Amino acid sequence: MNFKEVSGGVCAPAGFTANGVHCGIRKNKIKKDFALIVSSVRASAAGVYTQNLVKGAPVIVTKKHLSDGYAQAIVVNSGNANTCNSNGIEIAEGMCEMVERVSGIPANDVAVASTGVIGQKLDLSPMLEHIGELYEGLGDNSSAAAEAIMTTDTVKKEVAIEFTLGGKTCRMGGIAKGVGMVCPNMATNLIFITSDVAISPAMLDKALKEDVKSSFNMVSVDGDQSTNDTCCILSNGLAGNEPITSDGAAFRLFRHALNYCTVKLSKMLAKDGEGATKLIECKVVGAKSLKAARTVAKTVIKSSLFKAAMFGADANWGRVLCAIGYSGAQVDISKIDVTFISRAGEVKVCENGFGLDFSEELAKKVLSEDEITVLIDLKSGVFKSTAWGCDLTYDYVKINGDYRT
Amino acid sequence: MNFKEVSGGVCAPAGFTANGVHCGIRKNKIKKDFALIVSSVRASAAGVYTQNLVKGAPVIVTKKHLSDGYAQAIVVNSGNANTCNSNGIEIAEGMCEMVERVSGIPANDVAVASTGVIGQKLDLSPMLEHIGELYEGLGDNSSAAAEAIMTTDTVKKEVAIEFTLGGKTCRMGGIAKGVGMVCPNMATNLIFITSDVAISPAMLDKALKEDVKSSFNMVSVDGDQSTNDTCCILSNGLAGNEPITSDGAAFRLFRHALNYCTVKLSKMLAKDGEGATKLIECKVVGAKSLKAARTVAKTVIKSSLFKAAMFGADANWGRVLCAIGYSGAQVDISKIDVTFISRAGEVKVCENGFGLDFSEELAKKVLSEDEITVLIDLKSGVFKSTAWGCDLTYDYVKINGDYRT
Repeated sequence: MNFKEVSGGVCAPAGFTANGVHCGIRKNKIKKDFALIVSSVRASAAGVYTQNLVKGAPVIVTKKHLSDGYAQAIVVNSGNANTCNSNGIEIAEGMCEMVERVSGIPANDVAVASTGVIGQKLDLSPMLEHIGELYEGLGDNSSAAAEAIMTTDTVKKEVAIEFTLGGKTCRMGGIAKGVGMVCPNMATNLIFITSDVAISPAMLDKALKEDVKSSFNMVSVDGDQSTNDTCCILSNGLAGNEPITSDGAAFRLFRHALNYCTVKLSKMLAKDGEGATKLIECKVVGAKSLKAARTVAKTVIKSSLFKAAMFGADANWGRVLCAIGYSGAQVDISKIDVTFISRAGEVKVCENGFGLDFSEELAKKVLSEDEITVLIDLKSGVFKSTAWGCDLTYDYVKINGDYRT
Repeated sequence: MNFKEVSGGVCAPAGFTANGVHCGIRKNKIKKDFALIVSSVRASAAGVYTQNLVKGAPVIVTKKHLSDGYAQAIVVNSGNANTCNSNGIEIAEGMCEMVERVSGIPANDVAVASTGVIGQKLDLSPMLEHIGELYEGLGDNSSAAAEAIMTTDTVKKEVAIEFTLGGKTCRMGGIAKGVGMVCPNMATNLIFITSDVAISPAMLDKALKEDVKSSFNMVSVDGDQSTNDTCCILSNGLAGNEPITSDGAAFRLFRHALNYCTVKLSKMLAKDGEGATKLIECKVVGAKSLKAARTVAKTVIKSSLFKAAMFGADANWGRVLCAIGYSGAQVDISKIDVTFISRAGEVKVCENGFGLDFSEELAKKVLSEDEITVLIDLKSGVFKSTAWGCDLTYDYVKINGDYRT
């Protein structure tokens, strides 16, 4: 499925505006830390959240506010995760209430997210001081919002596409932040997607829940699952298509569009993993079940030894087999083929579970690129899955070993 | 239970001799790479092995040779894991057969282990050339054997204790190698324990299988499970105690002695983890079940973010809570207390799931020591568990990112 990429990020779909400012939660004055995304009309809304038992207060509040299937705005701060704080819920609700005061959008139609250090009290006052400025500046400023949610992200992450659905031109946009931290702390993924497609809350929820299984849930930078992970989508219907209320061609197209955006953002998240120098894609084919394909792909992409080998451009395929072996997936080791692929070419290193003689020179060339695919053929079925990650580098340790202050 | 530590490693128990030489699998001539441990009489034998679906050929051969519950020798090489090789079984059997030729011990009473790079053919000829020298040199040379099994280990790991059982003086000794590699490759744990206690194969097997759950299985350096992990124990009965053939006081004492040795070796393995500068001990108390205690301890010790924080002496307790939250164990987050402890003192950082005001200065002092305990009180039951690991450092990445050649 081909989609036309357009500019504008979360503001590309009709009716959406955004902004990001520095309010002062973060000490660095040139770093924006407060973002707002608003739809001109109430939108169908859905969210998926961290499975961690320790949940940030904003996750709890957003879940509640989206429980009726509708929302109209998303407010986010970086610099403090508002997690493990005794007054966290009150603060998260306070952020939604200040949006209501300036915009008239009811607080319970506002989604809220926070990212940053855990267990430090979050003070509303810097946000109260700057909510007016944030709201007044709403416009075609997806980039400002994308910047304001960044922590140790080195690049902002935005996508937007255009497609035709039921004869109407529709758009979808997204921004994301990944594995990074303020002081530093958690590796929190926040993803916000907007769309002007008309779709019922139930179908939007279904699309998002199904989609993340093959997109964001297949991304791993360090295997640590944040307390604040949130992916939230608003779809406001302004494209004027006949509303999607059930399965069918329109819903399938919507799901394809969503997957285009989420996979694109997933790759951006993986490539900008803390300290990463390379995007690693693990493509598993020939699996007996979808579950086995996903388990193998995810386990390989998470292996510290494999990731360090990719950093060193070392075709150490034994580590790939080793990870498959401890993944828990039922596979026939004696059938496995492993091939490394990049712009520079491809090199098959393992066939039927045993090593092949291969050119170390070619392998080094292939693995020295900044986007590498490891293709694993299990030769036992028709299921496949792809996971995205990055290499493990000195800088990962540096970023995460530094003092918080 | 207090045990008297003695010298001698695996040669401390009556009837055991050992040796280690350089045979040439490794290019570095000052690095021993070929080891042998022999009992003067046939011994009860038990082993536990990697759960990885990809198993080194020596694992398969040792399992077979120990299946009757007896063995008399252990032969080991470093420099090549003999894994994912089409002729691996033949080579591993060949190593046992060469022991038979020089010693008369039947090949099927020989345990075999290999550690090093995966998927490269292992040639018997360097070992054939040196098996005579290795065998002739057998004596009180536990240290030479401990050195010969090292890969990127920076120190050799030996322990030996003396205790009285049924009125007889008994001894137990062990050597281990940990997370290291030759060229580099797998993080293989090999542990060999000897004892002169008289114990039936069935009870020895029971003791070992139960023991590893609270010792070696609670060690994590990088979460990658090797294809060659092997822990093997020979107990030859020369202490002359009344043979242990069932549960009871003597068996309990044997289990305590075994646990003393295995926990000691576990800590040595963790402390010498690749690139590690610190031994991290995660002690979980107050759990609702033993399983929950172990799951929490193991998950925290494996968290890359937590490990990097320990490297940086950063009291980032949010990462501890985060790891508990995604461990899968059913815990009540609102009851959790977290305390960091070391020689320099202790500092409680989290109570009932929320952060405490604590002295950052004291916390830094506590965490700057080279042995740190993180104590997690779940306050929900009486079960406890301890896991051992290490910090995540630049050197881990360096060791594992380097080219194999």
